[in-house]
Amino acid sequence: MSNPRNSRRYLSNDSDVEDSDEIEPLSVSFQRPLFRNRKYSLDLPGIVTSKLTQEQPLKCGVGSKLVVVMTGLPARGKSYIVKKLKRYLSWLQYDTKIFNVGNLRRNTAQLIKNGSHSHSFFDPANKSAKKVREQLAMDCLDELIDWLNKGGRIGIHDATNSTVERRRKILERCQRETTFKVLFIESICNDNEVLEKNMRLKLSGPDYRKMDPEKALADFRKRVSNYEKVYETISEEEEKADMQYCKLINVGKKIIAHNIQGYLSGQCIFYLMNFNLSDRQIWLSRHGESTDNAIGKIGGDSPLSEKGRKFGECLSRFIFKQKVLFRQKQMDEYRSASTSSLPTSVPQVKNFLVWTSMLKRTIETVENFDQREFDIMHIRFLNEIYAGLCEEMSHSEIEIKYPEEYSERRKNKLYYRYPGMGGESYLDVIHRINPLIVELERMTDNILIVTHQVVLRILLAYFLDVEKEKVPNMEVPLHTIYCLQPKAYDTELKRWKYDEEKDDFFPVE
Amino acid sequence: MSNPRNSRRYLSNDSDVEDSDEIEPLSVSFQRPLFRNRKYSLDLPGIVTSKLTQEQPLKCGVGSKLVVVMTGLPARGKSYIVKKLKRYLSWLQYDTKIFNVGNLRRNTAQLIKNGSHSHSFFDPANKSAKKVREQLAMDCLDELIDWLNKGGRIGIHDATNSTVERRRKILERCQRETTFKVLFIESICNDNEVLEKNMRLKLSGPDYRKMDPEKALADFRKRVSNYEKVYETISEEEEKADMQYCKLINVGKKIIAHNIQGYLSGQCIFYLMNFNLSDRQIWLSRHGESTDNAIGKIGGDSPLSEKGRKFGECLSRFIFKQKVLFRQKQMDEYRSASTSSLPTSVPQVKNFLVWTSMLKRTIETVENFDQREFDIMHIRFLNEIYAGLCEEMSHSEIEIKYPEEYSERRKNKLYYRYPGMGGESYLDVIHRINPLIVELERMTDNILIVTHQVVLRILLAYFLDVEKEKVPNMEVPLHTIYCLQPKAYDTELKRWKYDEEKDDFFPVE
Repeated sequence: MSNPRNSRRYLSNDSDVEDSDEIEPLSVSFQRPLFRNRKYSLDLPGIVTSKLTQEQPLKCGVGSKLVVVMTGLPARGKSYIVKKLKRYLSWLQYDTKIFNVGNLRRNTAQLIKNGSHSHSFFDPANKSAKKVREQLAMDCLDELIDWLNKGGRIGIHDATNSTVERRRKILERCQRETTFKVLFIESICNDNEVLEKNMRLKLSGPDYRKMDPEKALADFRKRVSNYEKVYETISEEEEKADMQYCKLINVGKKIIAHNIQGYLSGQCIFYLMNFNLSDRQIWLSRHGESTDNAIGKIGGDSPLSEKGRKFGECLSRFIFKQKVLFRQKQMDEYRSASTSSLPTSVPQVKNFLVWTSMLKRTIETVENFDQREFDIMHIRFLNEIYAGLCEEMSHSEIEIKYPEEYSERRKNKLYYRYPGMGGESYLDVIHRINPLIVELERMTDNILIVTHQVVLRILLAYFLDVEKEKVPNMEVPLHTIYCLQPKAYDTELKRWKYDEEKDDFFPVE
Repeated sequence: MSNPRNSRRYLSNDSDVEDSDEIEPLSVSFQRPLFRNRKYSLDLPGIVTSKLTQEQPLKCGVGSKLVVVMTGLPARGKSYIVKKLKRYLSWLQYDTKIFNVGNLRRNTAQLIKNGSHSHSFFDPANKSAKKVREQLAMDCLDELIDWLNKGGRIGIHDATNSTVERRRKILERCQRETTFKVLFIESICNDNEVLEKNMRLKLSGPDYRKMDPEKALADFRKRVSNYEKVYETISEEEEKADMQYCKLINVGKKIIAHNIQGYLSGQCIFYLMNFNLSDRQIWLSRHGESTDNAIGKIGGDSPLSEKGRKFGECLSRFIFKQKVLFRQKQMDEYRSASTSSLPTSVPQVKNFLVWTSMLKRTIETVENFDQREFDIMHIRFLNEIYAGLCEEMSHSEIEIKYPEEYSERRKNKLYYRYPGMGGESYLDVIHRINPLIVELERMTDNILIVTHQVVLRILLAYFLDVEKEKVPNMEVPLHTIYCLQPKAYDTELKRWKYDEEKDDFFPVE
């Protein structure tokens, strides 16, 4: 035990300390090594700095590490959840990686020879296969832990992890690493329609691609039923042991969260609470050309040029047409569904939102949109990156006036923060956009977002899972619109370009 | 049915429309009244504007209304949850009001004559009392609905609402109002220690204040057990009927959320997921005096004055002493608990975080803090309100240079946004601080936040539930520190002032 008086050597002048005599000896010392692995609570890469991170601004490894362990039968959407979560966390600049036991299995050459993907491999009565599966899961975990120890931040263990016993082993292994937190995410689905759809999706996956579809489905069903025989949902006993877990039931319709601790786990669960699989379109565009664009200045709040106005007018016609087409497709699908045996009710007309920033050039771009057709909102979060001292300058002016800033920016555009009060970095913009991403995931409406170059890059980076190094250099020209349609395994992207002469939009391959 | 061709009158030039012939007649018209009551998804007062809100910037009534219906036995912390939620939502500028059935009961003079607060009133066998209780709950709901219809935003029905039947009635009543969404929040507690504590707290409440404590406790226990006889937790049947609900079990240790829809409900649940009752201190302070403060300029990024530096040095000594005192109290409590029969383990030393903004004057203020004792972080979200064109001006300079801005600001300091790119309003700052509030609620550590005048007002407004009109005019002088201790029914506030001559802090009454 250390001398408690030591703890007072920082009180440089004892006489200044009120009631100093009342300070009793303490049984536990406060002193900690200076560079211990601290568990920062709020750890936002690039937004929060400490003396430690200031010295290494590009390494974000000061927070605690998180191991996300998936649990759930096959065809319960685990991979979908895992991919989505990984995409979101990477976008928030946490170094995140998925460790998939199935891939490891398929990559293990010897096992492939033994035909490891046919259902008998998954039969719980098949003892040797069971042992191999156990081993694979633990190998996969070792790989994950190794990666975290080498600097990774969030590792996702993507496997069925279907028994209490297996989960206990995983937890024990992780707890050997003192700074690791473990979050179990169980995906449960008892909606037969969703299940059937998921199973059919699986047939296009790596295990079944080359098989006859009917045979493949039969094999997959057997595989699932083999798992069902031994499957144990996260239990009361695990709850009593204070396990940190979250159950997602029927694609987020119901959520059970237990003992959630730590900033990152909370963020993961809030994100997973907010998603849906409804068929919809997210349209993205920059504003029409502004008078500042025309002369190459950045920032500012200039109005549209004549060209920009024409783009805006055409955009309102084009998007209205797309709204009509979407409704038409929706009604066609309804009609063809109604002719089959299942009775379906007439689908509601989807709301169509239009979001812009609060700057003139985006507001003017949507001036021609009909308020009766579109819910138009102007949101400050969508404003362009604020360039501080460099506002309303051209890049060559910046190079001359602030040569050091210019070269700093070139070195790392993602982390670079513009000088002057209020100046922002890409990361600042990511965190300002974050609530909108959660909202976009939550809502089922169609939407058009009219925003700015940097914000558009950041939005596209999220939806298309763009590597962070590439984000600040993505080509997102003016007068080009993007249509995103979230699908089960990916986001579908289509592009159109505005042809000024023809005053119309044309698809880009 | 309307003529579908109508829907194309906004396509001003038909020849521009690609594939226009493919547009099929639609069975449902798109046309909606221009000023229908729209259900905006993302509805952040002062941050999101629409053509509707632009015309009435101070009324935030365009979003859908939310009715929060509490469910739970007495002494399950319903009032605590309700108060906290109301405080948070009001702080986010949603007009929120609690409608407490107990208060209505107590205010109903006739009932008080009949001794309505003794346990027999709550006996389910007491038919006439049951009818009166039913009626009171529905009257209270009518009051709530009336208030929402007159412009309120979120009404909270604070009652036990302990049966499926009662909840069904409430839901039916609310569904008659087309724009109302209903969120049920059930508070469940099966931790006996917490329960006992809650019951004893009740005795200081309005029903029992004047009774003998032992008699009061006995009466209250009977009252609870009367409720227990008829209490029905939110059931599977209600779940199947797609009820939007959230169960909070043991003060947020476990959470079950079902069918959560809408932006507001999601926010409420995320907030409620993140709170704890641990004994801790939140210290708040502005930075030491800066050279700009000394000459009356706002904004900017000036360093500390000599006076400011002295304050910072003394602050580090004072807070270190407070850390020692907190530990001492913790150990005293541990020791006195150990002498009683219950075995307790030695409590861990609490982390002590220090957060500052990223501006020189706050970073310099904590320069003397020992990194081995405190986790020091600099967070951009804590920066002072950005005054745009008015940065680094004095208020009298603003009055001369921008007289219109000056008078606009005086009219409504809360909604006023500084002119120029990036300029912020109080509401902008509230939304930038919001993730930090959730984080402060989540964490159990002690913390010192060194920030700026406007941010400090906003933080204090949250913790002390300050009326929004008063927020921009709160007195928060330099060299004054605030200590907040969240308690079951309130936040305890203490203040200290720095005495420059004595170079020490002294408590302020």
